[in-house]
Amino acid sequence: MTSEYRLKRRVQFYETDAAGIVHFSWYLRYMEEAEHALWREAGISIAPAGSEIGWPRVAISCEYHSALFFEDEIEILMRVATISRKTIRYECVITRGDDRIATAAMTIVCVIKKAGEPMRALPIPTDVIERLGVAVDA
Amino acid sequence: MTSEYRLKRRVQFYETDAAGIVHFSWYLRYMEEAEHALWREAGISIAPAGSEIGWPRVAISCEYHSALFFEDEIEILMRVATISRKTIRYECVITRGDDRIATAAMTIVCVIKKAGEPMRALPIPTDVIERLGVAVDA
Amino acid sequence: MTSEYRLKRRVQFYETDAAGIVHFSWYLRYMEEAEHALWREAGISIAPAGSEIGWPRVAISCEYHSALFFEDEIEILMRVATISRKTIRYECVITRGDDRIATAAMTIVCVIKKAGEPMRALPIPTDVIERLGVAVDA
Amino acid sequence: MTSEYRLKRRVQFYETDAAGIVHFSWYLRYMEEAEHALWREAGISIAPAGSEIGWPRVAISCEYHSALFFEDEIEILMRVATISRKTIRYECVITRGDDRIATAAMTIVCVIKKAGEPMRALPIPTDVIERLGVAVDA
Repeated sequence: MTSEYRLKRRVQFYETDAAGIVHFSWYLRYMEEAEHALWREAGISIAPAGSEIGWPRVAISCEYHSALFFEDEIEILMRVATISRKTIRYECVITRGDDRIATAAMTIVCVIKKAGEPMRALPIPTDVIERLGVAVDA
Repeated sequence: MTSEYRLKRRVQFYETDAAGIVHFSWYLRYMEEAEHALWREAGISIAPAGSEIGWPRVAISCEYHSALFFEDEIEILMRVATISRKTIRYECVITRGDDRIATAAMTIVCVIKKAGEPMRALPIPTDVIERLGVAVDA
Repeated sequence: MTSEYRLKRRVQFYETDAAGIVHFSWYLRYMEEAEHALWREAGISIAPAGSEIGWPRVAISCEYHSALFFEDEIEILMRVATISRKTIRYECVITRGDDRIATAAMTIVCVIKKAGEPMRALPIPTDVIERLGVAVDA
Repeated sequence: MTSEYRLKRRVQFYETDAAGIVHFSWYLRYMEEAEHALWREAGISIAPAGSEIGWPRVAISCEYHSALFFEDEIEILMRVATISRKTIRYECVITRGDDRIATAAMTIVCVIKKAGEPMRALPIPTDVIERLGVAVDA
């Protein structure tokens, strides 16, 4: 069972804005990158080709403590905080060396998508339940 | 004094992802677009060329109620919720016709940026205080 | 028959990078925005929900003559340059007032996408052929 | 002297669009990522903090041979093709295993940016000339 993942990553130029720092929308993408790496670490893909199961986001929050700059080397720690019948909640900390850059949380829901029908929430499939675990001190 | 802005906008193809819906990171950009339009409506720019004053984001949150699709016509209602000495907090509702798509909040802080120095929080300048007002029922 | 479209648009903050100007990748998105507006003007959508027909890009080129800045008001002129059996080629000029900002070209191909099969090129459907025309002096 | 760089990278979900494939604008960002990695390999940064020297793009072209999908592992081969007094031209090939995904080219120009003045082209600085070389068979 995988319950957390530490993704190391470098800030790219196209992630910065005219204020000279990483645009705040990118933190959500960093979080998603670490989430998907966590799933791969667990041996599963969050979006296998042709799957009718999807994982839209239902809530996110982020507190920005410090700015990020071009070529900064950062670490995104993504942890599974809670797993309910149909949702998963992650907690995330972004750091650059000893600097705490941001703390964030994200909740996703399991849905089934059929052509021409609205998405409908679904209990999390067994193969996901068996591979993702809640982080001990989350 | 301007306290709210309604931005009408169409979903672009590059905002969608392989789930066939708008990627969740885009909602923050929609919010920012409406924020900057609100400032222009108030007669000011949030980032005039050469200014040492900046407005980094310190906190954001978003609840996603429904998905958005390519070419959807949406409205982003951005309102000034509170103004403190150094920060501004907005509340935001995204709708598509009668559908409530997302509700969000964002707090920004006024900073001074000098070359080679870290950003430092600053009281909000008078010309901004005079032009932005808190929305009545925010 | 629609053969060209002029899209007016303002540069958004998230389109800029740490050089203080619009990131060069955004010009392709501006071009796509104008392309899709051209199709809507012609009464068709380039990606109707559930369609098996798609229009991947096969070639693009862009020459950048001048930089774009936050809040610049720009015009993207998109014109149909040639229509062959399976492809459409556009030419594009981006301007800010009298300033020529960029000139670009893009070729797209009509494909059919079926689940589990590779995309396959296809003659352009009649309803598209009937609505898009080649610009006179393109 | 560094004349080429092979960047290995995985396709992220936020790089895909509603057609289920990587949006064509992302190929330019892949190219830029590999370019900046090439510069770091050469011991230099293309955008050091506080520098007045910049490298805007003046021309790009890309031919798309095949689509990219979520979680694909790709390689971006970036090579210095020509160095003139003020410009550098790169050639780029993107592959996924044995599949040729895209071939591209990009020309950048060296400029000086001073506050309140337009950017002005400049001969390439010596420390860059000494560290970047033209790839043998480019």
